[in-house]
This record gives sequence, C-alpha cells and structure tokens, in this order.
Amino acid sequence: MYFVKVYVTYKESVLDPQGEAVKGAIHNLGYDEIKDVRIGKYFEFKVEKSDRDVEAVIEEICDKLLANVNMETYSYEITEEA
Amino acid sequence: MYFVKVYVTYKESVLDPQGEAVKGAIHNLGYDEIKDVRIGKYFEFKVEKSDRDVEAVIEEICDKLLANVNMETYSYEITEEA
Repeated sequence: MYFVKVYVTYKESVLDPQGEAVKGAIHNLGYDEIKDVRIGKYFEFKVEKSDRDVEAVIEEICDKLLANVNMETYSYEITEEA
Repeated sequence: MYFVKVYVTYKESVLDPQGEAVKGAIHNLGYDEIKDVRIGKYFEFKVEKSDRDVEAVIEEICDKLLANVNMETYSYEITEEA
C-alpha cells in the first residue's frame, strides 16, 4: 500500500483572493509578521499496489480531476507503507 | 524569512463526505486501486522573523482561525529561507 499526499495550489501568476482574505484576518488578529498567504487543496490517498505505476496513476488523476491545469499546479509525495 | 506549510484535515473519527465523493469519481475514471481519499485545506505562508517564536505564532493562527479544533486536526512544516 502506498500513502500519497497531493497539494494543489494556484499558479504564482494567478491572484489568490482567498489567500488575501485570510491574510487580512490574520493581520486583524495581530500577526503582522505573516507576509504572504496562499491557499490550496490537500488530498491524502491510500493506493493499493497494482500493475500500473503509482506515479502515473496519481498524475492522471490530478490532470483529469483534482487540478484545473490552466490555473493550478500540483505536487505530490508518495511513501510506501510497511 | 520562514516558509511554512500547514495541512488541515478532518480527524480520523469524522466522516469525510467530500473524500467519499472524490473517491467515487476516481473509481468512475477506472482507478480502483485508490482505496481511501481524505481531503483537507493546505496553506503556504511566508513569515518574517519577529521577536515571537514562529511555531507559537503558527499554532495560535491554526487554533484561532484555520482549523475547527472540534472536527479538524492540523500539522505544519517550517523551513527557513536562505
């Protein structure tokens, strides 16, 4: 079994209004040292071993379902469970 | 400057309907090897050094704003930018 973490965030060039809103709220709480906030989606998968390459499977799922590749970028970490 | 990643996910005991929905969609695409899907929020912060401990600041922000501590749990990674 594999344990996979996927992070989907807006591309640098895309404005992140949610991030700006959260930054404002954080500053209202008095934490001015927070300079930049970006928000994204986080997925955790358990993936059974199969005849397909786990990386290829994850990338296909990201491209087809999890990320809007026009505006978002994704990264992932795969660890093998004992 | 610190670069901080925060992951907010539902506690294990909490049903994740979004995760179930995404799992269903993934299976419809033919990826049956995906056994469990959990969805969460992902934050990236840039934090300026200040007289306050960066870990304490991040935990206070998570407790006060980012996570509903009754249903969610959070973890974070702090790296120092060169």
